[in-house]
Amino acid sequence: MVAPIDKLVDACRQMSSLASVRGFLLWDQEAMMPAKGVEGRARSMAALARIVHQQQSDPAYGDLLETCAAASDLSPENAAIVRELKYDRERSVKVPEALVVELSETSTRSEHAWAEAKAANAPEDFLPWLGKMVALRRREAEYLGFADSPYDSLLEDYESGLRAAPLRTLFADLRRELVPLLGEILEKRPPEEDAMSGLRFPVAGQLEFVKKVAGDMGLDMAAARIDPIKAHGIMVALHPQDIRITMLFKEDHLPTGLLGTMHEAGHGLYEQGLPVRYWGTPLAEAASVAIHESQSRLYENQIGRSRAFWEHYYPILVSFFPEQLGTVKQEAFLASLNRVRPSLIRTEADEVTYNLHIILRFEIETALFNGGMKVGDIESAWNAGMKDLLGLVPAKPSEGFLQDIHWSAGQMGYFPAYSLGNLRAAQFLGAARRDLPEMEMDIGRGNLLPLKAWLNDKVHRHGRRYSGEEIMARATGEKTSPQPFLAYLRAKYL
Amino acid sequence: MVAPIDKLVDACRQMSSLASVRGFLLWDQEAMMPAKGVEGRARSMAALARIVHQQQSDPAYGDLLETCAAASDLSPENAAIVRELKYDRERSVKVPEALVVELSETSTRSEHAWAEAKAANAPEDFLPWLGKMVALRRREAEYLGFADSPYDSLLEDYESGLRAAPLRTLFADLRRELVPLLGEILEKRPPEEDAMSGLRFPVAGQLEFVKKVAGDMGLDMAAARIDPIKAHGIMVALHPQDIRITMLFKEDHLPTGLLGTMHEAGHGLYEQGLPVRYWGTPLAEAASVAIHESQSRLYENQIGRSRAFWEHYYPILVSFFPEQLGTVKQEAFLASLNRVRPSLIRTEADEVTYNLHIILRFEIETALFNGGMKVGDIESAWNAGMKDLLGLVPAKPSEGFLQDIHWSAGQMGYFPAYSLGNLRAAQFLGAARRDLPEMEMDIGRGNLLPLKAWLNDKVHRHGRRYSGEEIMARATGEKTSPQPFLAYLRAKYL
Repeated sequence: MVAPIDKLVDACRQMSSLASVRGFLLWDQEAMMPAKGVEGRARSMAALARIVHQQQSDPAYGDLLETCAAASDLSPENAAIVRELKYDRERSVKVPEALVVELSETSTRSEHAWAEAKAANAPEDFLPWLGKMVALRRREAEYLGFADSPYDSLLEDYESGLRAAPLRTLFADLRRELVPLLGEILEKRPPEEDAMSGLRFPVAGQLEFVKKVAGDMGLDMAAARIDPIKAHGIMVALHPQDIRITMLFKEDHLPTGLLGTMHEAGHGLYEQGLPVRYWGTPLAEAASVAIHESQSRLYENQIGRSRAFWEHYYPILVSFFPEQLGTVKQEAFLASLNRVRPSLIRTEADEVTYNLHIILRFEIETALFNGGMKVGDIESAWNAGMKDLLGLVPAKPSEGFLQDIHWSAGQMGYFPAYSLGNLRAAQFLGAARRDLPEMEMDIGRGNLLPLKAWLNDKVHRHGRRYSGEEIMARATGEKTSPQPFLAYLRAKYL
Repeated sequence: MVAPIDKLVDACRQMSSLASVRGFLLWDQEAMMPAKGVEGRARSMAALARIVHQQQSDPAYGDLLETCAAASDLSPENAAIVRELKYDRERSVKVPEALVVELSETSTRSEHAWAEAKAANAPEDFLPWLGKMVALRRREAEYLGFADSPYDSLLEDYESGLRAAPLRTLFADLRRELVPLLGEILEKRPPEEDAMSGLRFPVAGQLEFVKKVAGDMGLDMAAARIDPIKAHGIMVALHPQDIRITMLFKEDHLPTGLLGTMHEAGHGLYEQGLPVRYWGTPLAEAASVAIHESQSRLYENQIGRSRAFWEHYYPILVSFFPEQLGTVKQEAFLASLNRVRPSLIRTEADEVTYNLHIILRFEIETALFNGGMKVGDIESAWNAGMKDLLGLVPAKPSEGFLQDIHWSAGQMGYFPAYSLGNLRAAQFLGAARRDLPEMEMDIGRGNLLPLKAWLNDKVHRHGRRYSGEEIMARATGEKTSPQPFLAYLRAKYL
C-alpha cells in the first residue's frame, strides 16, 4: 500500500517531467528551431500546457493533496512540498484550460513574430501580437485575482509575494541615488579606453575558455553543456543533472560571451545545487526567478568583473589569446570590462546603468497593466524614457523597445527580477565575505569553490522550502535593500 | 457544436504533439544530452509515454472512435484516419500502463549503458540491460498477441503485416543470389584503389556541400536543419515543417557524411512531403518504417553512388575541396564511392554486402525471440555468422555485436526494414525511370526535383492511407521483390 505522500510525490514528478520538457522546447525554439517549425512547436507547447493543466486540475489530485495536508505526521520537508503544491494547484485551477492553451499557442507565435519584426525593424508586424499577449495576460490576471493591481498577479510568477507598490518605492529609491551616482562617475572617472577595441577572438577559443571557467566555478560539466548559438544566451535545466547553456559569442566583443556564460553558469550552479533526491518536487525547484537572477548576476558582475577574479584568470585568458592580448595589460583589460557609460542595450549595459534599463521597463509594464497605456504608445514612451534616464534615443526599434524577447513571450513582470537579482547579489556577496574571510584571496588564486559551497548551503539546497525574502533573511540577516548594492558601486567606481 | 470527427482529429493531434516531443527527446538524448542527464531523461520519456498511453486508453476516446467509425458519411480520408486510429488504439490498450512505463524507462537507461559499454568494449556491462530489454519486449509481445511467433509482434512496429516466415523466405532468396554475386564481383572487378585515402576534408566544407545537395534534393531548408555531431546520423521530424538531421562527419572519410546526409535527407523529404493539412493524424504519418527506409536508401545509394549524380556534382565538390580533389579524376572518385568488399560495420558497408549484415541480425533476432538463444550467446553467434557470411571476424565487440544502437533501445525487428528499403528503392527507381524518361538526364544536370515530385506523388502524400505493400503496388505495379535490386547490382557491378 503506497502512502499518500508517496503518491503525491509521484504525481508531481509526472507534472515536473512534462514541465521540464516544455522548458526544453522553449530553449530549442529560441536556439535551434528552423523558421518554419513554429506551427508544430506552437501545437506541441500547447498540448503540453494543456496536459499539465489537466493534471493540476484533476479532482483526484486535489483530494490527494488534501489528504496529505491533513496528515499530522508530515516531516518538515514533506510539509513544505504539500504547501507549495497546494499553492501551485490553487493558482492553476483558477485559469480555464482554454486560456492556458491560447496563451501557450499565442506566445509561441508571438515570439516568432517578434524575432522577425526585430530583424526587419518592423514594429508594426509585432504590435498586434504584443496586443494579444497583453490582453491574454490581463484576462489571466482577472482569473488569478489580485489585491491592488493586475500587475501584481504577473509579478507573482517571478517571486511569490512580490507586489508593484513596494517595488515602485524600491525603484524610486534606487533611481534617486543611481542617477546622481552615474553623473558623478562619468564626471570623475577619466573615460576609459576600450583596450579590446578592434581585436577579434575566435569563438572556438572563447568557448574553451568559458568552459574552463564554468568548470572552475563548480559547474559539473558532465551534467551540463554549453553551446554557441546565434541567438541570446539562455540556461535551461532539464534536471539538476542536465543543464543546457547556450551563448552568443561575438568575435569582436569578448565580454558578451565571457560574462554571459558566467551569468548562465550562475543559473546552472543553482539548478545543480538543488537536492536531487527531491527531484520533481518543489524542494528541488528554485525559490523564485528573482533569487535565480541573483545567482547569475552575482557571477556575471560581482565575480566576473572583479579584480580578484582576473588576478588569476587574466594570464590564463592571455594564454588562450596570446596574439590578441599579449600586449594588453591586465589593468587595461579590467578597465575595459568595467567601462561605465549610458548605452542602448540592456544586456550589454554596465553595472551602474543596468538598473535604469529595468526601471524604464517597469514603468512601461505598470502603465500597460495598471494604467491606460496601449501597446501602440510603447515606442514613444520607451524613447522618452531612455532620453530621460540615460540621455539616449534609439535610432531603430531593434535597439529600442524591440530589443528584448520577454514581452513577446508574455513575460511581463520578469524584468524587475533582474534588478532584485543585482541588489541581492551584492547582499549575498557581502554575507559570504563575512562568513568566508579568505574568499577574496581564494578567488584571486582561482579557487571559486568556497563561494559555490556557501551559495549551495545558503541558497541552492533549500529549493522552495523558503520564500525569496526568507532566503535573504537566513543567508544575509537582511531584507532586500538597494543600499549594499549602491555601496558596492560607490566603492568600486568612485 | 463540434462534429465527432473534428473532436477525434483534435484528440489525435494532442497525442501526436506529445509523441513528437518524445521523438525529439530521443534525438536529443543521442545527439546532445550530457552524460549525467540520463536519469532525468528516463523520467521525462516515461512520463510522456504514460500520458500518451493514458490518452489512447481513455474510454471516452474509445467511444469517440466508435461513434466516428459508425458514421455513414465519412470521406475516404476521414475513413482512413478512423481506421488507423482504431488500429493504434487497439494495439495500445493491450499493453498495461506499467509495462509501457517500464519499457520506456529501461530503454533510456539501456541505451546509455550500451554507449558506455561500446566505448569501453565491455559487453558484460551491457548484457544485463539487453537481457532486460529482450524480456520486456517478449512480455509486450505476449500482451499484443501474435499468430506464429513473438517476433511477428515486433515486426508489426516497422510495417503493419510484416511477418517472420515470409521474411525468412525472402532473405533466403536474397542470400542465395547475393553470396555468389559477391564472389563474382570480387573475382571479376579489379580491386579499386581508394582515391580518397589519406585526404582530409574539414567538416565545415562538408556541411556546406551537403546542405547544398539536400536543398537541391528538394528539402526545404527553412523547415529543416542539419547539424554535425559526434554520434551517428539521425533524422527526426517534429512536424513536416521542422526536420532535424544530425550527421557524423569524418574528416578522413568523406562518404560517411556525404551519403549519410543524403540518407537522412531522403527521410526528411518523406516527412516534408506528408500533407501538412492532416498534420497530427495518421494521414500525415509515414506508411511504415520500412517504406521510410526505402526513401533514405534510395537517395543514399541509387542516387548518391550513381554516375549521373556525380556527373553534375563532382565538379561542385571539387570546387569545395580544390586542394584535396583537384587531382582526383571523377572516375576514380566514383570508383572509390563504389568499392565492394566485405567489411565489419553495417553503416559503412557497400550496396552489395549491406544486406548480408541485415540477414545476420535477422537470424539472431529470430533466434532470441522465437528460438532459445540467450543474450549471452549473441557474441559467439554474431562472430560465427560474420565469418560465414562475409569471411570476417570482429576483433572487438564495438566492431561486432555492439556496433548498433537498435537493440539497446529495444528496437528488435527494425533491421529488416533496411533491407526491405534497399529492395523497394530499386523498385521505386525502376518505376520512376519508366514514368520519367528524362530522369537520368535531369539528374546528370543536377535537377533532382522531378524525382522528388514523383516520390511526393507516389509515396509521400498518402501518409498511412495505404499499407506498405499497397504503396508498392500503386507506385510500381509490383510486390516487394529482391529481383529488381539484384538486377540493379548485376548491371552496376558486373
